[in-house]
Amino acid sequence: MRLCRTETIGPISFFAMLRRFGSARAALEMLPQLARRSERAKTVTAVTRAAAEAELAALHKAGARLVCWGEPLYPSGLAAIDDAPPLLTVLGLPELLQKPMVAVVGARNASANGRRFSRELAAALGQAGVVVVSGLARGIDAAAHLGALETGSVAVVAGGVDVVYPHENRGVHNALARQGAIIAELPLGTEPQARHFPRRNRIISGMTLGVVVVEAAARSGSLITARLALEQGRDVFAVPGSPVDPRCRGSNDLIRHGATLTENAEDVLSQLGPLLKAGNSAPAAPRAEIPAMPGWPQPERGQLIEDEAGFELILERLGPTPVAVDELIRQCHLSAAEVATLLLELELAGRVERHPGNLVSLR
Amino acid sequence: MRLCRTETIGPISFFAMLRRFGSARAALEMLPQLARRSERAKTVTAVTRAAAEAELAALHKAGARLVCWGEPLYPSGLAAIDDAPPLLTVLGLPELLQKPMVAVVGARNASANGRRFSRELAAALGQAGVVVVSGLARGIDAAAHLGALETGSVAVVAGGVDVVYPHENRGVHNALARQGAIIAELPLGTEPQARHFPRRNRIISGMTLGVVVVEAAARSGSLITARLALEQGRDVFAVPGSPVDPRCRGSNDLIRHGATLTENAEDVLSQLGPLLKAGNSAPAAPRAEIPAMPGWPQPERGQLIEDEAGFELILERLGPTPVAVDELIRQCHLSAAEVATLLLELELAGRVERHPGNLVSLR
Repeated sequence: MRLCRTETIGPISFFAMLRRFGSARAALEMLPQLARRSERAKTVTAVTRAAAEAELAALHKAGARLVCWGEPLYPSGLAAIDDAPPLLTVLGLPELLQKPMVAVVGARNASANGRRFSRELAAALGQAGVVVVSGLARGIDAAAHLGALETGSVAVVAGGVDVVYPHENRGVHNALARQGAIIAELPLGTEPQARHFPRRNRIISGMTLGVVVVEAAARSGSLITARLALEQGRDVFAVPGSPVDPRCRGSNDLIRHGATLTENAEDVLSQLGPLLKAGNSAPAAPRAEIPAMPGWPQPERGQLIEDEAGFELILERLGPTPVAVDELIRQCHLSAAEVATLLLELELAGRVERHPGNLVSLR
Repeated sequence: MRLCRTETIGPISFFAMLRRFGSARAALEMLPQLARRSERAKTVTAVTRAAAEAELAALHKAGARLVCWGEPLYPSGLAAIDDAPPLLTVLGLPELLQKPMVAVVGARNASANGRRFSRELAAALGQAGVVVVSGLARGIDAAAHLGALETGSVAVVAGGVDVVYPHENRGVHNALARQGAIIAELPLGTEPQARHFPRRNRIISGMTLGVVVVEAAARSGSLITARLALEQGRDVFAVPGSPVDPRCRGSNDLIRHGATLTENAEDVLSQLGPLLKAGNSAPAAPRAEIPAMPGWPQPERGQLIEDEAGFELILERLGPTPVAVDELIRQCHLSAAEVATLLLELELAGRVERHPGNLVSLR
């Protein structure tokens, strides 16, 4: 928890440091040394033991718990993505996370028909044994949560699980805390900010077998979830709508580009058929291995390098657009292990950001 | 006209008789003899010269004209289908039939949004130089006609061009007769009957480059037009709609099965791009040849056979479900020419019906 909650250490760095230093404890011990070495860096200070213990106490008080990557309750689909959250805070019934899940997401300013459709779709998916996941937003999300309340409904929120957002969803929030589950990557008490939402969306798509998009305008958040779902190899479903309604522009566009046209739960269930059967079997055994990052160079454990020229070589080749680490290795004429070490230090220094698919960019 | 207007002689038989006897005149002369030979047949009597002349006089009086298969004004796409109408009655501006055409069809009980969408779509297609074709029904059809009235609108009606149907479309009918065109396969004065509509739909799809379906319920006439369009190798476009609206069930289903999802004219125009350029060139030269029927056996001209056993062989293998002529030839152990002759006589006797794709069924 201390390593994971430390500023500038995202999920990808978290797992990279575990691989490099062998354990979270060892990584924490190296942190001051790593941070000191980067002159250009702002100081990285690990979260204190006291702060972590305070979070655990607050979790206990709130009736929430942690589910860690590698534990049996951690959703197996989510565990498999490149940037899986090392820790999930769960309020409500964590056992829901082991069932096969489908996301139903869409417009906040949804039409009455759209809300009704989502509620009925979620209820029908629930009847078929599927847990419905959404983002606890107004409109489609809230309707989907309500529809699946009796059978299994999980909200993935952008802030802390105890922060009701938006305010009008207090009723749904409370119902989910009792009958369903609310999960979050960020600690209790975190107020959701705009930049949190796309990160949150990767969890929605990552933990589900497929994402159903109901009423999504062009350039809406639901389309980000759909794109992430595609990148994660999940099925994307979209509900068609009139071209006269701008709320359907995005969902129609998804259909045009290959999403499954969806008019009812049967359209979803028949497409997911084989996956649902697999998902209904016993939960996967916890994985003891730190996730392998295909193509990601593995530095030698504990090794530190002094290579100012190497930092320059890498930094001058980076920009705001993510670039493949493999390409950096080729262009810098450095070994894969050297580049991995340099990138990790730059990341800890808050200079670079990692992206799924083994990409990095300048922060 | 006399051969074409004779009962039980559909378009496929019409062309088959022309191929068999060399000319319509020769076919007319053989008709009594052919009909007599079939004991099981009701008598086939050719339309008289006087009746044909009366139709021509009535056409003249109504301000309409004939456009015959093979004439320059005959739509080239329509000329290419298996069961092209030998004669079209045209009220209004026949020159519209030479331009590139797109059909816009849909529900009679269309929503206000659907009507507005169709009208705007038709207007935008018209602005792009496309003539809009529809079926002069209430709802989507009427809206499409009105939208393209200024730029080019053609109605294909199931009855005679002078019969206003439905009554409330009198205004659109009159406007099309002045500014657009109304065309029909059946003679002036024919009241449209239920069985005429699917036949009419093949003309709508046959004369156009593509068919746009706006709001079509499951099992609706627009879906027949779409199916015929696919069989004729035309593009099918469908406008998505909410699954909550049963009027969109059919159009959504078309998208699910491969129709182009269509939200505006640009979606149609970009898909048809290359065809539109070809279609905008000078009209195709009139075709002097009687349409070749691929795989259709060609009997020797003028040959007559006496083969009661042959009739039995064929009849016992036919049922209400269309069967391939090739399959009949194989199973009957007769020559292709024999089967063709027997089928023609059975058809003239009103016993069998021909279908596009070289299929026949028991009537």
